Amino acid sequence: MSKKVLLSGIQPSGLPHIGNYFGMMKQLLADQDQYDVYVLIVDYHALKSIKTGREMSENIKAVVLDYLALGLDPNKVTFFKQSDISEHTELCWIFDNITTMPYLMRAHAFKDAEAKNKEIDVGTFNYPILMAADILLYSADIIPVGADQKQHVEIARDTAEKFNRIYGKTFKLPEALIVKDVAVVPGTDGRKMSKSYGNTIPLFAEYDEIKKAVMSIVTDSGEGIPKNVYAIHNLLRPASELLPIYESKAGKYKELKELLIGDLEKFIAPLREKRKEYEKDIPKALAILKAGGEKAKAVASAKMDEVREKVGVKVY
Amino acid sequence: MSKKVLLSGIQPSGLPHIGNYFGMMKQLLADQDQYDVYVLIVDYHALKSIKTGREMSENIKAVVLDYLALGLDPNKVTFFKQSDISEHTELCWIFDNITTMPYLMRAHAFKDAEAKNKEIDVGTFNYPILMAADILLYSADIIPVGADQKQHVEIARDTAEKFNRIYGKTFKLPEALIVKDVAVVPGTDGRKMSKSYGNTIPLFAEYDEIKKAVMSIVTDSGEGIPKNVYAIHNLLRPASELLPIYESKAGKYKELKELLIGDLEKFIAPLREKRKEYEKDIPKALAILKAGGEKAKAVASAKMDEVREKVGVKVY
Repeated sequence: MSKKVLLSGIQPSGLPHIGNYFGMMKQLLADQDQYDVYVLIVDYHALKSIKTGREMSENIKAVVLDYLALGLDPNKVTFFKQSDISEHTELCWIFDNITTMPYLMRAHAFKDAEAKNKEIDVGTFNYPILMAADILLYSADIIPVGADQKQHVEIARDTAEKFNRIYGKTFKLPEALIVKDVAVVPGTDGRKMSKSYGNTIPLFAEYDEIKKAVMSIVTDSGEGIPKNVYAIHNLLRPASELLPIYESKAGKYKELKELLIGDLEKFIAPLREKRKEYEKDIPKALAILKAGGEKAKAVASAKMDEVREKVGVKVY
Repeated sequence: MSKKVLLSGIQPSGLPHIGNYFGMMKQLLADQDQYDVYVLIVDYHALKSIKTGREMSENIKAVVLDYLALGLDPNKVTFFKQSDISEHTELCWIFDNITTMPYLMRAHAFKDAEAKNKEIDVGTFNYPILMAADILLYSADIIPVGADQKQHVEIARDTAEKFNRIYGKTFKLPEALIVKDVAVVPGTDGRKMSKSYGNTIPLFAEYDEIKKAVMSIVTDSGEGIPKNVYAIHNLLRPASELLPIYESKAGKYKELKELLIGDLEKFIAPLREKRKEYEKDIPKALAILKAGGEKAKAVASAKMDEVREKVGVKVY
C-alpha cells in the first residue's frame, strides 16, 4: 500500500527560532519517514507581506539552507517552491470562479485583517483559495496545521467538493492534522516566542547569541524554579530528568541558565555547523530545490491536465 | 520603427451575429495590417459564466473557426487562448498582492453585479486584474474596447504604475481605444442586437435563417421607410446608395426586405462557405491556435521572467 500524502507549506520568513522548530519543523522532519511528504516554500503566499525582491530571494535561500541543515531528506521529501509550479495560481483562478465572495469573506484571516481596518490586499483575501490549490494539486491526505489554520483546510475541502460536484470527481478531500499549539513555547520574556516580540532564541544561533538570549530570560525574584528558564529547557530534556536538577538548584538562576546555555549549544551546534556547510555552496542547495520542483511539476501538471479537461479548456 | 502592439480579448461565447461583426470584429480584422496584433480567446475569463466543460470546449473551437473564416491571418496576428499561457494567472496572483479590496470594489462590473444582489464569484471580482495581466504581459500599446470596458484598461494602467513604483519600471502603460458603441446595431425588434433578446442575425447564417430573421424584422404600419430594415441594411451599403432605393420603394416593406435578404446573403455566403471549409478539418484550425500559443508563450514568459526577478522569486 502506498504511503499517505502529507503536505506542508513553509513561509520564507527569515531566521527561524527554536519555537518554530519545536512547534512544527521537528514534527515535519519526523514525518518524512512515515508519509509521502511535500514541503513547499510558499513564496507566492509571502508576497502579501514581503514587498522587496531582495528580501524575498534572500529568505527563499535561507529557508532552503535551514531545512537541509535540519535534515530534510530530498530523496524522501518533494521539496520545492510554489512559484516554480505555475499550476498553483492557475488552479487558484479556476477555483475563484466557483467561490463566492460572501463565502470567502467568512474566513477568519480576512475578518481579522478587516477588523484592524487595514486596506486589505486582494491577495490576502484570495489566500485560502491559493492554499486550496496548493493542497489539492498533490492529492494530499494530511495537512498538519496549527489550530488557527484549520479553517484553511476546511476551505480546501469545501472547494474540492464544490469542484467535484460541478465538474465530476477530480479532487481528494484532505484532512487537517492539528499540531499542538506552538504558543506553548515561551520566549525569553515569558510571552509566546515570536519574532515580532523580539524574544526569540534563533535556531542557528552562534554560541554568543545563545548566551545573550538565555541571560536575558526574565525570571521572577523568588527563590523557586525560574519558570521561563525551565519551560525553554524542557524543550530539550524531559521533565523526569530536568525537575530533579531544577529542584536541587532552586533559586540558583545563574547556574540554571548556564546549564541551559550548555544544552542549547549542544543541540544547536551541529545544526549550525551543518547549515554553514550548505551555505558554502548555495547553488548546490538551490539545485536540490529545483530538482524537487521538477518532481512536483510532474504531479501538478498531470492533475491540472485533468482539471483542464473537466472545465473544457483542453482542446488539444 | 516597429508597429504598435494592439491586444484584444475575445469571449468564447458561441454563435456571433452581425452586430458583433460590425461592432468589433470587422475593425479588429482591419487592424491586423496596421498593428502587431494579439488576439486571445479569454477562456479563463469565460469560466465565470460557462460552467460545463462541453460548452467551453465547443465554444473555443467555434470561435477559432469564426475568426479564421473571417480572415484573421495567423501570420500577422498572434492568435491564441489565454489558458495556454499560465503566465496570465500567475501575474494575476502577483498583482492581487498589490491591489487593495476597496480599489477593486470600485470596478463598475463588480458594483453592477452587487447591485443585482447576486452571490458574486471571486472570479468576477478579480476579473479586471486577470485582464490587467492579459494586457501587460504583451506590453500592449492599444486596447480597443467598448465604452463600458474603458475602466478595465484604466485598472491595467493603475496596476502597471503601482507595480513599477514598488518594484521598478517593468510594464508599459496601455491606452484604451474606444470603439464606436455596438449598441447602434439594431436587432430584428429594433432593440440592440443581442443574443439575450433573441433578435439577432447570425453571422454565419444559412440562407433560410437569413430569410426568416429578415422577415421577422418589426416594421411600423406606416407608409415610409421601415427604419429597422434600413438600419440593418445600412451596415452593408452606404446611405448614399441606400436612401434613394428606400425612398423610391417607401412602404414596400416586403420588397425592401427581399433586397436586404439578397444583400445579406451576398455578404454572408462567402464567410459561411469559408467557415465550412475550416470545419472540415478542426484539428488543423486548432493547430493554428496552438502555434499562436507558442508565439505568445515566448513573449509572456520573457516578461514573467523579468517580473519574477523583480519580486524576488527567481533564485535560479
